[in-house]
Amino acid sequence: VSVETVRVTLPISFLSDFGHADEFVGVVHGVVARLSPETHVIDVTHGLPHGQIRPAALSLLRAIHYLPPGVALVVVDPGVGTDRRAIAARTEWGYFVGPDNGVMSPAVAMVGGAENTVSIENSEAMIPSAGATFAGRDVFAPAAALLSSGEAQLEDLGPSVDPDSILPLLLPLPKAGNGSVQGEAWWVDHYGNVQLNIAPDDLRAVGASEGSEMRVIVGSQEHAVRWVHAYGDVAEGEQLLYTDSSGMIAVAVRGARADRRFGLGDGTAVTLAVS
Amino acid sequence: VSVETVRVTLPISFLSDFGHADEFVGVVHGVVARLSPETHVIDVTHGLPHGQIRPAALSLLRAIHYLPPGVALVVVDPGVGTDRRAIAARTEWGYFVGPDNGVMSPAVAMVGGAENTVSIENSEAMIPSAGATFAGRDVFAPAAALLSSGEAQLEDLGPSVDPDSILPLLLPLPKAGNGSVQGEAWWVDHYGNVQLNIAPDDLRAVGASEGSEMRVIVGSQEHAVRWVHAYGDVAEGEQLLYTDSSGMIAVAVRGARADRRFGLGDGTAVTLAVS
Amino acid sequence: VSVETVRVTLPISFLSDFGHADEFVGVVHGVVARLSPETHVIDVTHGLPHGQIRPAALSLLRAIHYLPPGVALVVVDPGVGTDRRAIAARTEWGYFVGPDNGVMSPAVAMVGGAENTVSIENSEAMIPSAGATFAGRDVFAPAAALLSSGEAQLEDLGPSVDPDSILPLLLPLPKAGNGSVQGEAWWVDHYGNVQLNIAPDDLRAVGASEGSEMRVIVGSQEHAVRWVHAYGDVAEGEQLLYTDSSGMIAVAVRGARADRRFGLGDGTAVTLAVS
Repeated sequence: VSVETVRVTLPISFLSDFGHADEFVGVVHGVVARLSPETHVIDVTHGLPHGQIRPAALSLLRAIHYLPPGVALVVVDPGVGTDRRAIAARTEWGYFVGPDNGVMSPAVAMVGGAENTVSIENSEAMIPSAGATFAGRDVFAPAAALLSSGEAQLEDLGPSVDPDSILPLLLPLPKAGNGSVQGEAWWVDHYGNVQLNIAPDDLRAVGASEGSEMRVIVGSQEHAVRWVHAYGDVAEGEQLLYTDSSGMIAVAVRGARADRRFGLGDGTAVTLAVS
Repeated sequence: VSVETVRVTLPISFLSDFGHADEFVGVVHGVVARLSPETHVIDVTHGLPHGQIRPAALSLLRAIHYLPPGVALVVVDPGVGTDRRAIAARTEWGYFVGPDNGVMSPAVAMVGGAENTVSIENSEAMIPSAGATFAGRDVFAPAAALLSSGEAQLEDLGPSVDPDSILPLLLPLPKAGNGSVQGEAWWVDHYGNVQLNIAPDDLRAVGASEGSEMRVIVGSQEHAVRWVHAYGDVAEGEQLLYTDSSGMIAVAVRGARADRRFGLGDGTAVTLAVS
Repeated sequence: VSVETVRVTLPISFLSDFGHADEFVGVVHGVVARLSPETHVIDVTHGLPHGQIRPAALSLLRAIHYLPPGVALVVVDPGVGTDRRAIAARTEWGYFVGPDNGVMSPAVAMVGGAENTVSIENSEAMIPSAGATFAGRDVFAPAAALLSSGEAQLEDLGPSVDPDSILPLLLPLPKAGNGSVQGEAWWVDHYGNVQLNIAPDDLRAVGASEGSEMRVIVGSQEHAVRWVHAYGDVAEGEQLLYTDSSGMIAVAVRGARADRRFGLGDGTAVTLAVS
């Protein structure tokens, strides 16, 4: 007899702002393991800034095409303990489970939109709490586990909601004009590289191209920076503009932190101008 | 032929103060994977304060009912390299493996006590070290892996110990009197919420109930705080008392850190008084 | 019918300097899970210092014998975006996948050297990027996953390289003389213990032995320290020299941080002298 084992559970990709100091992440893993022992849970990141929706939404957006189709479990939830809804959506990629605060909206849109979204209200799909609800543990983790194992269908979790009632997330668009593009920093990574909300096509539309000499303007400071392909095109310690691995324009310094050199943080206004 | 795969290994839930800067966590995972490749290891947390027993014991206590029955592997071990014993206990929940320093005692008691506890002394169940023993790697991880795979019974690990010889952990009890309860902060979480060693029943016993106006007294400072159900019952930026998701009274600020506003850290004395 | 499930994929042991703030670690897990859903990925550590090769190489070296034979995936890659090669090596232990910058060289040597090393150049084994290559995600993770699942042989990844062209990592050797050994600190762990590049045999060669009274000389400071077996041999708060769990001489303080007391960081020169 030849047998192949088929993993019939869907993998769960788990993002949160829980950090690693407390047992929050482990408790969510525990709840999933109790309900669906075979489920593979990928910790995408738990280091997202506390209760900030945009950075979490962007992180999920950058990651989604690299995660195995299954369940995205997203717990960045500044509205926990208020009447914000807990939702679950079915898409072509798989399921999204998290708060209705916009954090999942860009990624859901990226994978083609939701076929159906429900408000998680079925108490049979939840874990009772000794006190205030710890939504990650009591609501979102069980929903994700039940969808992963197939023990629940999306519609078992609660009533469908009007798609127009789901909170979107408005991402800022850059403005072009007269040889320059005004945008903002929206991600400073662990290495100090700074991704802008500016795409290569935005720069091309004002006449720049890879190889162009540019100016990066932050407040009253101007910095001369060349738009290159990769780190290797500049010397150690030199600054560069490049299309980063998610396809957006980023500011970096080879071997050092660009956020410090340019004074950039999440949301800082940045103008890129052709020199 | 229809076949179901049964995971015959017990999951291991692993807590430590190892942090994430070194390879300690990974090496423990490696040891488990070498001895029992199919074992699922859940990282509950590795961010526990260095060598502090009470925070680790409380973390395990809060988590235990959410972890899948199996093996709890607990490595917060300020006495490593001394003659403190390494122990393993069998309970109704599963096994507990760690140092005999009290860190596991509250959780073991919570799940009904130990049926048997052994001192891990069988060198065949250990990994020899090139130098000083790294107990997490050389003693605790192999014991947990062998219990997980079923290759060892608890009694194979070493001789049973007198239950009265196992170090307990005395958790401080609050004192009630005259419309107030005196306790202490015993957990500041990642968000700055502060759990006290005071249960809702302790407050009810002095005449308070959900909805009561209370005073939180820390040193010479008094703060007016209402006991509410959840964050949503106060405005953004307002402080609250509530029964948290582990069933204890906690001090919080909606959208901000209560530890900073109230000057609270692990062990700070706190009095809650009915206004 | 009795059936045993055999995990036919090789485990991947993954080290990086990605940190936990971004989704980098999760994206690599995602890529592996998409290509090889059954692969077990062990996170050895992602807290290695940014772009520093020696600490990462030493971490891998300390860990390798405790990791399950399979694939070591090492992403500490200050030369990303330059023309440094991406390589994969086959050894008796298993495969090593990472940059050709020396980070894997000591561990490869430790397990007996490489049977063959290839330069990863086959674009069919890579993931196309929307911009700059994120080598961990686009090159190293797919290579590791394909080796894990057996879908690729090492030689499918690219052409073999001349072993002499692979970057070695020169680890500093201590110098002995006249009752003392001059070395350096090369690892400060999470607890502040400081491992030196000095082995017990180096001390024995100058006449010391366990139990000897020694002097630890750092700059102009001298500290009297006894070489003992373990923490338990000194009182709380006292300093010690001992052979640590990787078999090297380390400086520690029972219950406190030795790096602070002795003023030691990665690379600090340290002389150990017999008193």
